[in-house]
Amino acid sequence: MKSTSETKEVRSRKILLNKLENGTDSEKNNNQSCQRPHPYESCHKIRDSLLSSASGYTNYRGILNLCVVLLVMSSSRLVLENLLKYGFLVRFNVPILFIKDPTAWPSLLALVLSNVFICTALYLEKLLKQSKIGENGGKFFCFINIFTALLAPAIYLWYREANPVSSFFALAWYTCLSMKLVSYFQVNRHYRLKSRNELSVNKKDTVPEKAATESEQIEYPQNLNFKNLYFFMAAPTLCYELNFPRSQRIRKSFLIRRSGEIIFLSSLSLFLLQQWVVPILQNSKIPFRESNILKIIERLLKLAVPNHVIWLIGFYCFFHSYLNVLAEVLRFGDREFYRDWWNAEDVDSFWQNWNIPVHKFCLRHIYKPLLTQGITKPQASLIVFFVSAFFHEYLVSIPLRMFRIWAFLGMIVQIPFAIVVKKFLHGNYGNMAVWISLIIGQPIAIMMYIHDYYIDYFEVSN
Amino acid sequence: MKSTSETKEVRSRKILLNKLENGTDSEKNNNQSCQRPHPYESCHKIRDSLLSSASGYTNYRGILNLCVVLLVMSSSRLVLENLLKYGFLVRFNVPILFIKDPTAWPSLLALVLSNVFICTALYLEKLLKQSKIGENGGKFFCFINIFTALLAPAIYLWYREANPVSSFFALAWYTCLSMKLVSYFQVNRHYRLKSRNELSVNKKDTVPEKAATESEQIEYPQNLNFKNLYFFMAAPTLCYELNFPRSQRIRKSFLIRRSGEIIFLSSLSLFLLQQWVVPILQNSKIPFRESNILKIIERLLKLAVPNHVIWLIGFYCFFHSYLNVLAEVLRFGDREFYRDWWNAEDVDSFWQNWNIPVHKFCLRHIYKPLLTQGITKPQASLIVFFVSAFFHEYLVSIPLRMFRIWAFLGMIVQIPFAIVVKKFLHGNYGNMAVWISLIIGQPIAIMMYIHDYYIDYFEVSN
Repeated sequence: MKSTSETKEVRSRKILLNKLENGTDSEKNNNQSCQRPHPYESCHKIRDSLLSSASGYTNYRGILNLCVVLLVMSSSRLVLENLLKYGFLVRFNVPILFIKDPTAWPSLLALVLSNVFICTALYLEKLLKQSKIGENGGKFFCFINIFTALLAPAIYLWYREANPVSSFFALAWYTCLSMKLVSYFQVNRHYRLKSRNELSVNKKDTVPEKAATESEQIEYPQNLNFKNLYFFMAAPTLCYELNFPRSQRIRKSFLIRRSGEIIFLSSLSLFLLQQWVVPILQNSKIPFRESNILKIIERLLKLAVPNHVIWLIGFYCFFHSYLNVLAEVLRFGDREFYRDWWNAEDVDSFWQNWNIPVHKFCLRHIYKPLLTQGITKPQASLIVFFVSAFFHEYLVSIPLRMFRIWAFLGMIVQIPFAIVVKKFLHGNYGNMAVWISLIIGQPIAIMMYIHDYYIDYFEVSN
Repeated sequence: MKSTSETKEVRSRKILLNKLENGTDSEKNNNQSCQRPHPYESCHKIRDSLLSSASGYTNYRGILNLCVVLLVMSSSRLVLENLLKYGFLVRFNVPILFIKDPTAWPSLLALVLSNVFICTALYLEKLLKQSKIGENGGKFFCFINIFTALLAPAIYLWYREANPVSSFFALAWYTCLSMKLVSYFQVNRHYRLKSRNELSVNKKDTVPEKAATESEQIEYPQNLNFKNLYFFMAAPTLCYELNFPRSQRIRKSFLIRRSGEIIFLSSLSLFLLQQWVVPILQNSKIPFRESNILKIIERLLKLAVPNHVIWLIGFYCFFHSYLNVLAEVLRFGDREFYRDWWNAEDVDSFWQNWNIPVHKFCLRHIYKPLLTQGITKPQASLIVFFVSAFFHEYLVSIPLRMFRIWAFLGMIVQIPFAIVVKKFLHGNYGNMAVWISLIIGQPIAIMMYIHDYYIDYFEVSN
């Protein structure tokens, strides 16, 4: 509605301008005693075409609608073409096959065994509280615990030749677990040191009546129990806190809607994967073998769209639907799992906004502690970045059982790209550059892995 | 820039809300003597995810950029796929072949012969002025002249089996010519009757000194000469006026830019036609023969995009570049050849805004005269519509030498569609419906003609 009123305004302004310019017109009108001329006598005025820059016309809202229509139409044509070309490729028993697949079982075992590391962490904290081990010893044992939690499942799943998908989920959980344990250790250490300081101060002063005023809030040593620790392990956050903000009640309708989204969207992405992505990947084997650059680019662009659609669905499904379901069930109050990364105008702000749990963890438990130890901000950023790149590689290489560095390289390439975008592109252009890097960057890395995966595992059998 | 400031505003408002809600937070702060809590003590707040409707967040400007990126990317992929599939199909000698083609010559002859009708019209006007023939006789002869101008070239080009493209251009010129002659006759008739009335009035009153004040303006009988008539014939308008508004001077840079656009855009559309449209049409012969509905729809959607792109280029090239060049050369002031049809929110306003010369002619010389003769507005609209539909059919059937009624039907189908759009869709949805009708409607009609053309001319030879 706004656009039409604007149009009218522009038009009326133009008519006014024309009236002012065409003095001859008004003179003629005066001659005819203020009568309008007969339509057969005057029907042309001096004026510019709208598309001439001189006209000053700028309302192209309709062109945006055209873009939307074209996008929807060409997508539906692609779906139709795909169905005509390949038939209906979706097999509905994929999830059942997946569960029955014995190569998925090692991952399940690994998931169950993660409890060992959780219990060890709690046991170590209790020992530290009772001063049965010193601060440095505790630090060492915690490090060993977390390091083992990252290394042991990786080695186990590698040698059991576990299914890549189940293996990915297991390792993703272990990555989260290790981050949670780091946070748990650091926060408990902070409170332990604080209470010792307070004790030494309180030997001189009176004991403050703090516990009385905040009756429902847990204080430091009370939190060292299984209930508190397992709540943190289940909660959709990587940053430990003694008293998480809790929502009032579980909203059932919210829970049902989000759960419905999970079921629908995961089915949809499974459908798109089988129907749209797999044929493209299979057709790209030949261009790769022939090393035909133009054909590889064509395949890449063809892969980019479904890959991006599935990524967007996956983002929504995990960061909005799944984490909100988890938070709703646990009455976990803080639902900021992502910020408005879709408006990010440079690569930095995309990385800072799209995955808030990890971003918050990196800021609180890596970046800021590094700063307090006298490391400069750019150095700290770089360390955070490399840790992040390492985990990306970890989550891809181990499940696929291939040590390539494409994911790591894909992360590293972001640095010069981010600098270029920040320097030369602003506003909507910067935003478009971020989108392009997302749309193009991912499928390149995926293509490289798929290419190597095919060569490693199928070339031998052919 | 606006979007980011909005985001900041939304965020700061949300932070404020959170502060108000989290009374416990501020109490805690008070307990700690207004100090901010250590980051290890508090890092979560109660808040909603942005995509939850409860968050009230609405800034999705980035998603629009995503649409633009996807559109550009998938288009360039299509170009690449096309080149890989068909190779380089463009033949650069098409325009030369076209000129050398003897079947194009009848059209050229027809164009030259159009001068006969122009001269006849001027001769008739002079006879009428001198009262050598009566008003009714003049009307009859003018009608015969215009009717012959429409019928004779059609019959001539049909029997000479002229090239469809050249034939189309010749008939398009004759259509314009006949409209111009209608306008010329009606305007001259208006002035003739007016001057006779004035003469009869002036027998009683004194003669007004009108001619003196508007010295450079031409009065009625002075306009009946070749210079004035041929200026009107060349001018980019279909509505005759004694004194057209003229621009001050010919802007050379404007002329060069517009001419460059004509050369570039006509080459581009010729390229797209050969490289993109022709392969699709050739591939759609088999689905038509098999009558496979799904495949025909797929072909139709595949044809729709290049067809629409070429139509848009053609619109710009003719209505903006060509008509502006013509107007600039003739110093014709009124450049309103189109209005903002791209924002049209219903079918009516699209038809009223996209082709202003024809719209203006229909309004001035068909619709309004019909109203003065006591015909109601809806009836007059319907008559205008049928005249327009007739000329669409005329311009397609004769060049292709096939009497089908697809173009006519295509126009007629617009009526119920327009009613539905106007009733049920408003704003951007109406605009999208208009775009869809443009994108889908045209290729359906074209497909029908091509289908019949192939069957008529090639099926026999196979």
